[in-house]
Amino acid sequence: MSTIQDVAKRASVGAATVSRVLNGNGYVKEETREKVMRAIEELDYTPNEMARNLFFKRTGIVAIIIPQISHPFFAEFVDEAMLELAKYNYKVMVCNTWDESHYELQYLEMLQRSMVDGIIFGAHSLDIREYQNAKRPIVALDRELGAGIPCVSADHQEGGRLAAEVLMEAGCKKVLQFCGKKGVSTPSFQRHACFERIFQEHGLECHNFTLSRNSFSYGYFHRIVEGVFEQYPDIDGIFGTDIIVMNAIRRAAELGIRVPEDLKAVAYDGTGVTGLMHPDLTTVVQPIGELARECVHLMMELTQGNAIAQTSIKLPVILRKGMTT
Amino acid sequence: MSTIQDVAKRASVGAATVSRVLNGNGYVKEETREKVMRAIEELDYTPNEMARNLFFKRTGIVAIIIPQISHPFFAEFVDEAMLELAKYNYKVMVCNTWDESHYELQYLEMLQRSMVDGIIFGAHSLDIREYQNAKRPIVALDRELGAGIPCVSADHQEGGRLAAEVLMEAGCKKVLQFCGKKGVSTPSFQRHACFERIFQEHGLECHNFTLSRNSFSYGYFHRIVEGVFEQYPDIDGIFGTDIIVMNAIRRAAELGIRVPEDLKAVAYDGTGVTGLMHPDLTTVVQPIGELARECVHLMMELTQGNAIAQTSIKLPVILRKGMTT
Repeated sequence: MSTIQDVAKRASVGAATVSRVLNGNGYVKEETREKVMRAIEELDYTPNEMARNLFFKRTGIVAIIIPQISHPFFAEFVDEAMLELAKYNYKVMVCNTWDESHYELQYLEMLQRSMVDGIIFGAHSLDIREYQNAKRPIVALDRELGAGIPCVSADHQEGGRLAAEVLMEAGCKKVLQFCGKKGVSTPSFQRHACFERIFQEHGLECHNFTLSRNSFSYGYFHRIVEGVFEQYPDIDGIFGTDIIVMNAIRRAAELGIRVPEDLKAVAYDGTGVTGLMHPDLTTVVQPIGELARECVHLMMELTQGNAIAQTSIKLPVILRKGMTT
Repeated sequence: MSTIQDVAKRASVGAATVSRVLNGNGYVKEETREKVMRAIEELDYTPNEMARNLFFKRTGIVAIIIPQISHPFFAEFVDEAMLELAKYNYKVMVCNTWDESHYELQYLEMLQRSMVDGIIFGAHSLDIREYQNAKRPIVALDRELGAGIPCVSADHQEGGRLAAEVLMEAGCKKVLQFCGKKGVSTPSFQRHACFERIFQEHGLECHNFTLSRNSFSYGYFHRIVEGVFEQYPDIDGIFGTDIIVMNAIRRAAELGIRVPEDLKAVAYDGTGVTGLMHPDLTTVVQPIGELARECVHLMMELTQGNAIAQTSIKLPVILRKGMTT
């Protein structure tokens, strides 16, 4: 079987030129390109991606590590990141951690062992030192992985403010917000703090319902709202991520609690599932496409050995007003 | 930098033994394992996955090709397949085709070029010959890729029958079913044919609303139901995949059409999003976890060079009765 070197020799060019022709990137003179293509044909050469990647110390794969791909926020993020990475000829490995650190450690080792060129981390269950020691291209989505590792997130503080204000304007006096499990270091918690502070500053009540698990399955979100209106019978507003709020509205309907008359609701994320609701759900929308593109651009800089000047990137959120407030 | 051969030499074993120790699979005597581990430590060896994979002609990666990962059916399928593949120490590359055949061709070439060990195809836009010529491990989910390529699907015919019967029992006389775009060769179309035939056999009306695009985005499904009740003002039952039916119910609510009084509805797939509905949605549930596990098992057989005796595998569906019929 012919190798890339055989092709290069026959075409009287370097192996890097053959690779550029095969990948269709980088400048190659038309005359040279034809010579290479002829050599490929004459030698009946099928490029072995592994051998080529080993030669160029590049796998052409970026891994995206997330808690669970079936959660719509992560699924939409991967959709958008994949589209952007395709422009740079990169493929995507998707790795669920199911909130188990042994999986995450395995994925990090994969980076160390050159199975992928870089990792976008949308999960975080290991000690900061593990990520720091990696010394390879890492970009974090919504996770703080320590100094030097870029972190891309939405402006969650502004998101918390928008949600609090729209509920207050709708007349809410006693609200409940669903908060992620403690112990994960993520800027997304800033929305909880900001939301609570604004209600307290106005002398209003804000209760926090903290999730006991770091799970992202539909089934878990379905269960957690089960007893919430019995536990907080007199709340008049709720705030949480799309699926939690949609489940809470479903539960409210089962109990005869009317939205928006008896209960106002604001969702956070703005994934496609919110479009299934009637009446339209008031939602703080994260810029999922831009988050993905920013992560990819930073990753491309790192894989090329470039330094990242600003390691904390915050992108704006918007409020989409619906009929639930 | 040390290589796997250096480690093998120092430990006086073969490279395959070092690999077994590193991967933690296959039998290795405890004494040998310790010798290998000592050699790894003494040489400060970091395994290069690429070099090792090239040596063993294995990438440890299975690609899953689907139209779009943000569609809940495919997202849940990938979740389940990933969990199963992890047991065999395989990672998952996820590839959206966005219904564009040039992407699918690129992914197929990736298999030819040994970038992945096998492909599970849940998309199909190329000529059958392309898959046939690959002569590498391919398993199809719900797609007919020609002789010899195993196809795993739910029993769609039974699914169509269950949906038709539950709507007829609820008194429907004139129903509408949403059908996938024509031109894709998939056993899932059997449900449309069966559903229509049953209504016709009973002298009842069945209209087919055929999608013009092979798109799987929330936005597309939101738009297609927009004018459906104006176009079919007197239908009393609808049948389609989860997101289409949920969108149709949302649209019906906007128009003051009551479910189930004026309109009955049955969804197909049974993904997590159906749990967000109030009242509970009557649904034909595909066994997504079992479909994924069956695809993975067949893939493992093929990567080990084993033949597949039965290439058409049908798994049972069930009816989950809700309040919409």
